[in-house]
Amino acid sequence: MATYLADNQTRFLNELMDWLRIPSVSADPKFHADVLRAADFLKARLEEAGVQNVEICPTAGNPIVYGEYMVSPEAKTVLVYGHYDVQPADPYELWNSPPFEPVIKDEKIYARGACDDKGQVYMHVKAFEMMMRDGQGGVPCNIKFMFEGEEEIGSNNLEIFVRANKEKLKADVILISDTGILANDVPSIEVGLRGLSYHEVTVTGPNRDLHSGLYGGAVQNPINALCEMIASLHDENGHITIPGFYDNVDELSADERAEMAKAPFSEDEFKQSIGLPASYGEKGYSSMERTSIRPTLDVNGIWGGYTGEGAKTVIASKAHAKISMRLVPHQTSAEISELFQKHFTSIAPAGVTVEVHPHHGGEPVVTPTDSVAYQAAADAMETTFGKRPVPTRGGGSIPIVAMFKSELGLDTVLLGFGLDSDAIHSPNEHFGVFNFLKGIETIPHFYRNYAAAE
Amino acid sequence: MATYLADNQTRFLNELMDWLRIPSVSADPKFHADVLRAADFLKARLEEAGVQNVEICPTAGNPIVYGEYMVSPEAKTVLVYGHYDVQPADPYELWNSPPFEPVIKDEKIYARGACDDKGQVYMHVKAFEMMMRDGQGGVPCNIKFMFEGEEEIGSNNLEIFVRANKEKLKADVILISDTGILANDVPSIEVGLRGLSYHEVTVTGPNRDLHSGLYGGAVQNPINALCEMIASLHDENGHITIPGFYDNVDELSADERAEMAKAPFSEDEFKQSIGLPASYGEKGYSSMERTSIRPTLDVNGIWGGYTGEGAKTVIASKAHAKISMRLVPHQTSAEISELFQKHFTSIAPAGVTVEVHPHHGGEPVVTPTDSVAYQAAADAMETTFGKRPVPTRGGGSIPIVAMFKSELGLDTVLLGFGLDSDAIHSPNEHFGVFNFLKGIETIPHFYRNYAAAE
Repeated sequence: MATYLADNQTRFLNELMDWLRIPSVSADPKFHADVLRAADFLKARLEEAGVQNVEICPTAGNPIVYGEYMVSPEAKTVLVYGHYDVQPADPYELWNSPPFEPVIKDEKIYARGACDDKGQVYMHVKAFEMMMRDGQGGVPCNIKFMFEGEEEIGSNNLEIFVRANKEKLKADVILISDTGILANDVPSIEVGLRGLSYHEVTVTGPNRDLHSGLYGGAVQNPINALCEMIASLHDENGHITIPGFYDNVDELSADERAEMAKAPFSEDEFKQSIGLPASYGEKGYSSMERTSIRPTLDVNGIWGGYTGEGAKTVIASKAHAKISMRLVPHQTSAEISELFQKHFTSIAPAGVTVEVHPHHGGEPVVTPTDSVAYQAAADAMETTFGKRPVPTRGGGSIPIVAMFKSELGLDTVLLGFGLDSDAIHSPNEHFGVFNFLKGIETIPHFYRNYAAAE
Repeated sequence: MATYLADNQTRFLNELMDWLRIPSVSADPKFHADVLRAADFLKARLEEAGVQNVEICPTAGNPIVYGEYMVSPEAKTVLVYGHYDVQPADPYELWNSPPFEPVIKDEKIYARGACDDKGQVYMHVKAFEMMMRDGQGGVPCNIKFMFEGEEEIGSNNLEIFVRANKEKLKADVILISDTGILANDVPSIEVGLRGLSYHEVTVTGPNRDLHSGLYGGAVQNPINALCEMIASLHDENGHITIPGFYDNVDELSADERAEMAKAPFSEDEFKQSIGLPASYGEKGYSSMERTSIRPTLDVNGIWGGYTGEGAKTVIASKAHAKISMRLVPHQTSAEISELFQKHFTSIAPAGVTVEVHPHHGGEPVVTPTDSVAYQAAADAMETTFGKRPVPTRGGGSIPIVAMFKSELGLDTVLLGFGLDSDAIHSPNEHFGVFNFLKGIETIPHFYRNYAAAE
């Protein structure tokens, strides 16, 4: 490991932990002041590292932190994107240590946002500082930093900002660290991401909560009705039953699937790592395929009726669920949202009414592996890991990758350092100290490789 | 209306409202001190009315308030039962006025417990006071009062108390006001009640919450699984699919059903009163039958995953539901609970495990209409309403009615004065001032008729 990194790693970790102490939860308005504090913190650290023209750009929602370092008008320009907002941390009682009091345990940093995405954003801040100070040739190309505070709630204002600042954001490629590698000894780069269609549904029956003894049997119970509707969204083979849902799905060839199957993956380890009693999923596909090249439908939350202690004999007036679908190329969020809305409304049984409220969506994307930027990233990882990274198709969604392509005409390199086991969006989210430091070590190699390429 | 009642009705209402201000919610431990205060309040009012030997009898849970008034060892004895605990009041935001700040609006008392059961218990306290003071002949028979504080959570300690005090509780009949009449101009007396089997179920999939993008498709989602399991509990005709569920159901004859159908009931008014878009229920039965002579299965609460504002892309580790069944003669709570537990565990799909935790149950019951006590009650109502009451089969459960029969060998008369529209167990529970006063007026007639009968 380079001397500068070795000499400064404790400080780097402490700075990150200071940032993780700020609960920048974008989904819940009560954390709004903390979100702004997290943006200010980031601005200050970018300035200290030597980034120029750092500004807090206001939006209709949470601000975007922007800064740049221009070496020459002729040099290539990399636009680095990340987000400083984090997922809600509940249920708090399942955390082994408080989500906003970071601790390092077993060589991992435990905190909400440790990996997604503050930890990975902070790799970029420190990689930049290192290039500025380690005497290894300085910063080899133009870099623009753009970090938003609304990734976990749909990036709506980022899109507006990007549209309004196309000149300012002009670049040759986008670099994002918000994904992962297969294992610490199996480096990989994601070259595909699933899209997202997310809805909140409300089923309404009687106009008020009713006593289940007096009314039970003569009233369509909205919770039972919602369960019935949700159950009908999959058939016995795990296929999604929404008419037209699979029409535009990009089906991989047998060769492509055979190629995918070569990636190291153990079904047993997969099950064991998350305590699954048995495999499950769409018939005819492997677990790896189910989480990458196949679309899905999951209920992310459900609630209705009495959920407190003890027994209350009530028939609720309303039942609610959050339902999301992961999309694959060439499904579009708009198309699938419309199909879902139409279908879900149509399957409401007699005695209830249904409302479907769409949340933000995102488009699926496949990034090129034959580009200069991808090769620069692969070479950088090969240098620092000692192994050529495997290109993989990821299951998650970074909707802004498709947006960057359509609005700025730019491809993205997903140079992420997390692990599937990091429990992002879950209690006890963490990020390996190895991964954090490996990211800081690798990123400067990317810039140098990229700047040097023909 | 008798002069004493007319002269004192404002005071009676004010006293009741003072009692309703005490939030005696038994299901939630945080109200424990209030439950005890509500018992003390009741004891003081019984003593003021002239009841003797009033005591707060401790149990393993909330105390039982007991008192008696013995006119003669030869006189008949009526054991009056009621409960001073109330249902939880949430969701608070749906109340038009705070649940524990009673108000009278449109001639109705609005508060949690106004009807169920503090308002109806208080009719007995004031009816007793009236008999003591109105110069109409005094108290004509022995009366024992027993008011518990755990009816809404299963009356477990009442049963222990009853078993331990059989001599003390010796009586000829039980009198309970915890039910209703068909309408203020259609008096009725319930002669049947449904039983209850209530369970809390937990479905567990992965050992932690997961990111729905990284894992979605390859993991059985516990919420989807729970929905599927719940949906399968009814078939397309609204029949319950638990094997053996209907084996012991007491099927009514065509004549009995024809007799039932004569009771005044408007399907349109029923739907309109609770804002139902369409009828629903078990095929082959009327709404009135569905809520009385047929068993049911309803989800009373469901929760899991992210239920806050906005969108969180999570696959929850666990999903939960409260599921209850209303039982009819001759189903038993123990038998049905066992069938449910066995069936629900057996239908868990691959990839999840299921736990079923039973809450309290209760037995269905049919009370005789040819008894002296029933006739005394019917005559009393005929006197005060000017119309003979209709015998009805109710949909609710008062599990202690079956327990009184088995432990004390006593039948019960259900002399209730509520209305289906009183919104018990719901926001904006209320009790008509007419009903409260009519109860106080009617009860003394019951005692006199009963004492005078052969």
